[in-house]
Amino acid sequence: MVAMERSVGFQSRSPVEQYLHDLLAQIATNTEGTVADYIPELAKANPEHLAVVVVTVDGKVYSAGDADVPFTIQSVSKPFMFGYALQEYGLETVLKKVGVEPTGDPFNSIVLDDVNNRPFNPMVNAGAIAMSELLRGENHAEREATQMDFFSRFAGRKLTMDQTVYQSESDTGHRNRAIAYMMLNSGMINGPTEEVLDLYFRQCSILVTARDLAVMAATLAAHGRNVITGEQVISPGNVRDVLSVMATCGMYDYAGQWMFDVGLPAKSGVSGGIIAVLPGQLGIAVYSPRLDSVGNSVRGIEVCKRFTRDFSLHAYVDRTDTRAVVRRMYHGDEVTSNRVRSQSEIQVLYQAGKNISVVEAQGPLHFGTAERLLRQASKVATSSDTLIIDFRRVAYADRAARMLLRQFVTERSATGCKVVFTEVCANDNLRGFEGAFAEEVASGQLAFVSDLDHALEAAENALLERHGLNHREEKLKLSELELFQGLSREEIAALEPLILSFNFKEGQTILKVGDEGRLIFIVARGSVSIHLGEPSDLARRIASVGPGQSFGEMALLDGGRRSANACADTPVLAYAFDVEEVRKLAQTRPRIMEVMLANMVRSLSNRLRAANDQIKALE
Amino acid sequence: MVAMERSVGFQSRSPVEQYLHDLLAQIATNTEGTVADYIPELAKANPEHLAVVVVTVDGKVYSAGDADVPFTIQSVSKPFMFGYALQEYGLETVLKKVGVEPTGDPFNSIVLDDVNNRPFNPMVNAGAIAMSELLRGENHAEREATQMDFFSRFAGRKLTMDQTVYQSESDTGHRNRAIAYMMLNSGMINGPTEEVLDLYFRQCSILVTARDLAVMAATLAAHGRNVITGEQVISPGNVRDVLSVMATCGMYDYAGQWMFDVGLPAKSGVSGGIIAVLPGQLGIAVYSPRLDSVGNSVRGIEVCKRFTRDFSLHAYVDRTDTRAVVRRMYHGDEVTSNRVRSQSEIQVLYQAGKNISVVEAQGPLHFGTAERLLRQASKVATSSDTLIIDFRRVAYADRAARMLLRQFVTERSATGCKVVFTEVCANDNLRGFEGAFAEEVASGQLAFVSDLDHALEAAENALLERHGLNHREEKLKLSELELFQGLSREEIAALEPLILSFNFKEGQTILKVGDEGRLIFIVARGSVSIHLGEPSDLARRIASVGPGQSFGEMALLDGGRRSANACADTPVLAYAFDVEEVRKLAQTRPRIMEVMLANMVRSLSNRLRAANDQIKALE
Repeated sequence: MVAMERSVGFQSRSPVEQYLHDLLAQIATNTEGTVADYIPELAKANPEHLAVVVVTVDGKVYSAGDADVPFTIQSVSKPFMFGYALQEYGLETVLKKVGVEPTGDPFNSIVLDDVNNRPFNPMVNAGAIAMSELLRGENHAEREATQMDFFSRFAGRKLTMDQTVYQSESDTGHRNRAIAYMMLNSGMINGPTEEVLDLYFRQCSILVTARDLAVMAATLAAHGRNVITGEQVISPGNVRDVLSVMATCGMYDYAGQWMFDVGLPAKSGVSGGIIAVLPGQLGIAVYSPRLDSVGNSVRGIEVCKRFTRDFSLHAYVDRTDTRAVVRRMYHGDEVTSNRVRSQSEIQVLYQAGKNISVVEAQGPLHFGTAERLLRQASKVATSSDTLIIDFRRVAYADRAARMLLRQFVTERSATGCKVVFTEVCANDNLRGFEGAFAEEVASGQLAFVSDLDHALEAAENALLERHGLNHREEKLKLSELELFQGLSREEIAALEPLILSFNFKEGQTILKVGDEGRLIFIVARGSVSIHLGEPSDLARRIASVGPGQSFGEMALLDGGRRSANACADTPVLAYAFDVEEVRKLAQTRPRIMEVMLANMVRSLSNRLRAANDQIKALE
Repeated sequence: MVAMERSVGFQSRSPVEQYLHDLLAQIATNTEGTVADYIPELAKANPEHLAVVVVTVDGKVYSAGDADVPFTIQSVSKPFMFGYALQEYGLETVLKKVGVEPTGDPFNSIVLDDVNNRPFNPMVNAGAIAMSELLRGENHAEREATQMDFFSRFAGRKLTMDQTVYQSESDTGHRNRAIAYMMLNSGMINGPTEEVLDLYFRQCSILVTARDLAVMAATLAAHGRNVITGEQVISPGNVRDVLSVMATCGMYDYAGQWMFDVGLPAKSGVSGGIIAVLPGQLGIAVYSPRLDSVGNSVRGIEVCKRFTRDFSLHAYVDRTDTRAVVRRMYHGDEVTSNRVRSQSEIQVLYQAGKNISVVEAQGPLHFGTAERLLRQASKVATSSDTLIIDFRRVAYADRAARMLLRQFVTERSATGCKVVFTEVCANDNLRGFEGAFAEEVASGQLAFVSDLDHALEAAENALLERHGLNHREEKLKLSELELFQGLSREEIAALEPLILSFNFKEGQTILKVGDEGRLIFIVARGSVSIHLGEPSDLARRIASVGPGQSFGEMALLDGGRRSANACADTPVLAYAFDVEEVRKLAQTRPRIMEVMLANMVRSLSNRLRAANDQIKALE
């Protein structure tokens, strides 16, 4: 590992950049290899140039050295051109033109695969020339533009061509001409050969910097979505195919040792550039013109070896942590919905809550994580009749995950357990997900509910009903209200004249954060949500208050401002009284106040205890 | 994707197993290829046998078909033998004996690498024979035992050899003899050649089932830790090297197409077995004896292609979700420690809490995730003087992550921000982690604190002190206690005779869950932790109660049982009174009771609000 000098002040480099600088300082002393000279223009490159750039999939750029020195892209263009062909024509058509098997022969070999008569792979010149013919356009100028536009979209900026190198390539590219005419002879290319070759020479002459190449590599790491512009340049499936070929054919005859030492799909070019891709994480580009005998940048390979070793970036160092897929797992006796419950209801939920299981998933759902998620879910839901799976933090769910989920739902259903999926609709990562389960929803095996709290509340209500605690729809009398428990009939009669009565429509806002207010409300019929955020943001509710229970009690203490919003979930009938009126009454009848305060302490204590249980389960 | 019949009852197969069965049913119709017959015994294999087994890194086995039919391991043994050599001799020594470059020649080629005079790679016979010579033991019998023992440790059960196949291999293995003698001639092997060959023949003749091979493959997926026995058979670094060679050389001349279609490191053998490894997730084994012209199992390849395509298991389908590394991120004004605070303290924390930042990390910390974690941490801590990073849910932190963390701590320190790492000690995944930061701890840039709550409380105390709210160490008077706020001097005088006074030693348990109790306590000096779990489990505390604040108030309501433990964190002086005594007093002086109840409602409301804030931040 490169020893790093410690940063000395506020404006210091980031740790990664510091590392890259130190690494280049050490590598710079290596002057082995020679600059390519098969075309005169390339031989003019400054052999001392040295750059490394690392770009993350979210577009953060770390660079060191000559990151902005332009050079021609040369063979580093080949995987991108292969990507273009896949994107435009699909795999089947492209594989008629080119194979995917590495060859022991040099990159400029004239040999074709004798079984299929096609170039061995798109990373050798023959294969790349075959790809050039696939550029779309009505005429040559249009095809030129298509090509430059495609590479620019990958780089995230408008690229240009080095006219001199292009001329030089075109004037001296006799071997490539031979390859092209041989392919014309064998029927592998059909078009006007000189035009196809011209596109190939132009492609090799596109000017890039190490920074550009790193952005292009990072765009491959980001499944084809440009990390700067956000444009989806090629599809994730095509990126996979491009990376596969890079892995086996990208480094000429050095593929085995490269896979062993560096382990990342990569591509090098004779101008001294190398890109390497760590899928899902980052793109790396190195530039240093001196080449080894195989045609790879000497210092470029050294930088990649050191960097990937020091940071354990090898493809076969596992970074998957399937355990993380289960964020939390609990039963209805450990965490309850935000519905404020009576003592007897709490009792039932504590005793029978195992009937409700909740599994919160997170991260990407693919075979490995979905398999684990569902295995864990099976365990937790053994004795449950409702299993809620929360998708709020799911980053994506691939086809494999959907298949496993469907099968799982059907299986659970056979054991008498209903499955509920929550937070799917609001999750932008799960577009089209719900549609895949139409059959299971239609047959009643599965339900989608907008948010976890509502799903949990519904499951609790069903459970309470089975235990004879029916949801009461009739209006409660004053004596039945929790706040007045323990008051005598005569004391309630004394209170009665102070009581106001309100009707709220479904969706109506009753209290708003910051409002002044002295009224304490008690729900007589219906349901009220208490939440902290915007009134519309029901998912953030902190309590759901039902018949017999109160809200807005803080008015009793400070006559201050409302600390939460209250909103009617259903048509609501509520009683209310003014704190000051009760205080006045208390001057002659102190016991009324004491009983009400004690009831509040009890209710608050219960809610605090539930909140603490929830925090404990959330940890 | 294979259409799956829906399961029909309780005892149905798991979704994965159902899929595998359906897949085999479809593949079984393919009768292409021929059983290997280069040794007579192999030709006797039942060509109809067909099995697929998938084993996860946590040891879950999914199988279909003839998963328990024994067959000889043949060349599937080669990567494991290479792993043995790496484990015993290290990379440098092993690379003198064998290269890592794929060869275009057949597996039984006699050609050696003409530069280094060594076999091209350990997946061809020459390379494998060179590895056989490395088996440790005083004599041939010991080396035999070493070999069988090593393979048994990989399979997680005692393996045996097929004596007949071994005899047949030994009698007819003339080509392998030629290879061995050629290597003897070139000095690549030195030992008694017939004995080395004998070990190689024995190795090829080890009897395994598809289930065994899947466990062995899964053990490679699990970084070399056997998924059944838990034994670390070879090191993670050596597993990486084994997988690298499998990726480029494991499937003979089919490597490029295999990488393209399946994309997983794999190895096949002439008896019809294939293993494939998805690092960090699973091992796959297929068995079907009919081979194609290259020497790979026809149906085996088909099963792997279908299975990996249907479940998107290709190595270059990204499964990394670096976003998940930040579990939560918040400031001290959003989430507070469990310390119960006074109104004025709460005020300060709400206004100045941005000075404290907390980042909770989770999952594996490697370059990609650590880079993101620290980038996010830099953002959240812009205006903070304390940054707490919680490691409770970190699955591991590799060298790259440690390096980035060290550099980050130094950088933060330069901006005047102190960094605190929490939950490191108790995290078994982070052994040796703390030691890597000795320098930063010594220089005061970094502190390790056992748990997040204590670290947060300490940061809050420092912040409050800077705002003039000093931690009071002197004993509080009754009139200063929160519970008695609002009582007149005369009312306090009436209460005074009822007040008891207690001294608790540090660590002493004051209340225990389930105890009966009528006493309400008020802390006069020191600090008390309230927690729900075992008294020793301080990390699970739900509140920390300091001077002026009360605990055990529920006694006022029900005279019931204690619902939490209370334990003295420091030497504690506490006041206490018996609820019944106060109730008696209240009969003549009702206002005392009312004021105390109102104070309790206020305190509970504050705590409930804090708890709700915390739940909100935890979501």
